[in-house]
Amino acid sequence: MSVLVVGSIALDTVKTPVEEHADQLGGSASYASLGASFFSPVQLVGVVGDDFPESEFDFWKQHRIDASGVQRAKGKTFRWSGEYAWDLNTRETKSVALNVFENFSPTLPENFRETEFVLLANIAPSLQSHVLDQMKRPRFVVADTMDLWIETTRKDLDALLPRVDLLILNDSEARQMTGETSLIRAGRKIRKAGPKYVAVKKGEHGALLFGEDEFFSCGAYPLEDIHDPTGAGDTFAGGVAGYLAGKTRGEVNFQQLRRALIYGSVLASFNVEAFSMDRMRSLTTDEIDQRYDMFRMMSHFEVLE
Amino acid sequence: MSVLVVGSIALDTVKTPVEEHADQLGGSASYASLGASFFSPVQLVGVVGDDFPESEFDFWKQHRIDASGVQRAKGKTFRWSGEYAWDLNTRETKSVALNVFENFSPTLPENFRETEFVLLANIAPSLQSHVLDQMKRPRFVVADTMDLWIETTRKDLDALLPRVDLLILNDSEARQMTGETSLIRAGRKIRKAGPKYVAVKKGEHGALLFGEDEFFSCGAYPLEDIHDPTGAGDTFAGGVAGYLAGKTRGEVNFQQLRRALIYGSVLASFNVEAFSMDRMRSLTTDEIDQRYDMFRMMSHFEVLE
Repeated sequence: MSVLVVGSIALDTVKTPVEEHADQLGGSASYASLGASFFSPVQLVGVVGDDFPESEFDFWKQHRIDASGVQRAKGKTFRWSGEYAWDLNTRETKSVALNVFENFSPTLPENFRETEFVLLANIAPSLQSHVLDQMKRPRFVVADTMDLWIETTRKDLDALLPRVDLLILNDSEARQMTGETSLIRAGRKIRKAGPKYVAVKKGEHGALLFGEDEFFSCGAYPLEDIHDPTGAGDTFAGGVAGYLAGKTRGEVNFQQLRRALIYGSVLASFNVEAFSMDRMRSLTTDEIDQRYDMFRMMSHFEVLE
Repeated sequence: MSVLVVGSIALDTVKTPVEEHADQLGGSASYASLGASFFSPVQLVGVVGDDFPESEFDFWKQHRIDASGVQRAKGKTFRWSGEYAWDLNTRETKSVALNVFENFSPTLPENFRETEFVLLANIAPSLQSHVLDQMKRPRFVVADTMDLWIETTRKDLDALLPRVDLLILNDSEARQMTGETSLIRAGRKIRKAGPKYVAVKKGEHGALLFGEDEFFSCGAYPLEDIHDPTGAGDTFAGGVAGYLAGKTRGEVNFQQLRRALIYGSVLASFNVEAFSMDRMRSLTTDEIDQRYDMFRMMSHFEVLE
């Protein structure tokens, strides 16, 4: 089954203590759709300018990402530039040029409106709601968000939450949103505000998943070296939504969500191993399955062979 | 099989934002031996003053903790007093009076010297080495340490490491000891300095376990409310060492260590639910097993019923 992915498409310039690359494919929808494509066909909605490389459309086609929902607007593509600190844990945004993204309004092609799985990648919550308004009857809605929307468009975000099945956010955002220090309290509180499930990402410490009476905790894949953390969260969300769309049947249950979280973590761990999406461009499903098995070995303490 | 536990025995005065209790049983060996006692008989070595309540000796006896290695010295028992910040994440030591602990030199009763499992709870590494010097042929040595020893007695600590099978320390101590930001690098580096296995505790984020080619990661039990974090690390170490002594046969392997870490986490999670050791004083093995099963439910994503 396909998954619809809506979000930003950008050309990123990223500097780490050891490398710098300009105008690399970036944006929440680019990372998320590539992550999802390993598990299910993707329908991509976004906007690019007339300077956007045609080769990326070919790349999407090869990865069964249907880019017929990507608008081509007059002007330049959204550009973002950032620099990471020495430990890659913090980053500073050097410049943002919204360009054609400034007036982006996601309009779904007719044949995208009946898609049952949706990933609202990180964009303004009002746009995320606008996407849902156009859909016939989505079966499972995953939404990603960020500190900016919690701060500046809280009302829009609050209005979106009851329409979301799985909300994904990181630990500091969960604390910011609830005023709770305990992530357990924070996750449970956010769930009560609407989403059926809440996933809290904790970077090197893994992720937590909250359901009504269910709880799941997983670690992060043990990487010694990270080359570029850009897009890790978007890739995680893409892996989760893609797995649910492609690998589950019927109603999504907590057990499937557990596995989806692991697959999201696997994808994100590959993504940060190289600059931009470079690692994911050559990634195989065998490599994904091997790392999934590693996750099992490092998490399970009963019934191991 | 018994486990020998050596460390400090104190009377603690602890203040949290909601409660304050004076002269409660505390110290690394007190918490660790009680934690261990749920899985195996304990041989306790430490020192108390002539003001130490006789009732605690009765309490130890009820918990199959053999306190014949506890020296009774002239003078006052070691006293520690601390206060926790509003979120219980940081604490300030208000006062320390070493008293009889100042000149403590752990001397093992003859019948303790052949014990095969040892937990060197948190005390100066020179004393930890002194304990090992007196032992015939320990099969598995667990050692706990802290920032103070890394800072002030690093040489003694380095000399101890090759004699240790499992070193337990927390995340900031692992970083401090190695100068590495990545806990994965830090854990692997410490293992290369001597211990066969290294466990890194991460508080609310659980724990990591490093072996030669093996890695294990577990979350923390999801508690909404913590009443008193004092002794959580000592209890964890006690649970780990007690489980290994009481529940494993033959050579300790990585799979047994995985389970030991979970039992340590279970014990620690109970311990912080009430002041001092109050929760552990009434804890049952059924409650421990139930929480162990919860850990399985929250960690496993394959082969769940």
